[in-house]
Amino acid sequence: MLLDSDDSGIEKSINEVTGRWGGSFYVRRITNWKNEIKKWKASGGKVLHLTMYGINFPDLINDIVTENLLIVVGAEKVPPEIYELADWNVGVGNQPHSEVAALAIVLDRLAASSGIDPLKTQFGGGEVEIVPKSRGKEVREK
Amino acid sequence: MLLDSDDSGIEKSINEVTGRWGGSFYVRRITNWKNEIKKWKASGGKVLHLTMYGINFPDLINDIVTENLLIVVGAEKVPPEIYELADWNVGVGNQPHSEVAALAIVLDRLAASSGIDPLKTQFGGGEVEIVPKSRGKEVREK
Repeated sequence: MLLDSDDSGIEKSINEVTGRWGGSFYVRRITNWKNEIKKWKASGGKVLHLTMYGINFPDLINDIVTENLLIVVGAEKVPPEIYELADWNVGVGNQPHSEVAALAIVLDRLAASSGIDPLKTQFGGGEVEIVPKSRGKEVREK
Repeated sequence: MLLDSDDSGIEKSINEVTGRWGGSFYVRRITNWKNEIKKWKASGGKVLHLTMYGINFPDLINDIVTENLLIVVGAEKVPPEIYELADWNVGVGNQPHSEVAALAIVLDRLAASSGIDPLKTQFGGGEVEIVPKSRGKEVREK
C-alpha cells in the first residue's frame, strides 16, 4: 500500500501487524501521489479508481482481471484529476458505501476470477498464527 | 442493523443516507444485545459471530447459506459470552483484518451462493440515483 498521509503512526502500526502475523503486505508513505500513478502507468500498469460514480464493477471485471492494477482509494474527497488519470473509474455498486468494504470486494472478486481464494492464503514469515476454533481463541507461536 | 451504542448520531446519519439514496436498510439502536440474540434464536434464526479466531468462512459457507442469519460484528473487544451464544464463530481468513471488510465479504459471498449479485440490486424509494460514468459524476433526481 502506498499511503499519501503525514501520519507515520499508520505506517508503523500496520507494518508491526505484518511483522507479527506474517505475509508480504507493506505500507510505504508517499508525498506525490500523481507522480506514483504516472510511474506506474509508464511501467505498463493500469489504474483503477474506486468511486461510487463510476461504471459498476460487475460490468468491467472481465476487462480488468488480467491487468496489473494499482487501485486508488480516496479516504476523503479526492482531487478531480484522478478521474482523468485513472484507466477505469469503477463503482462497487453505485450507492454510498464504505471504501474499505469496496476495496475488499474488488480484491476478493478479482482473486476469485483468477481461481484463488484469498481467505485460504498461507502467510509466510511472522511470529504467530491462529488455530481456528469453533469456540474461544487460540494463537500459537510459529 | 441493530446498533448497541449510545451514539444517536450514527443512527440518524445512516437513516438519512437511506432516505436520500433509497433501499430497505435501517439502523435501530438497542440497549441489550444479549436479549436481542436470544429473541432471534427463539424465533428460529441462527447467529454468526465474526472473529478472526473462528472457523475459516470458506469451510463453513455451505452449512450456513440457507439459514436465517443474524451476523454479529464487534467494533471493540467483544464480551466472551458471545462465543457461546453464537451458532458459529467464523473467521474471514484467520488474520487481523477490518471488521467492515470481513462483513462485506461474508455478505457478498452469501449472496453469490444464492445466485444474487448485490452490486446489481436496484434500490427502491429515495430521492436520487447515480448515473454510472467512465469519467466524472452524475446524480439525477428520481
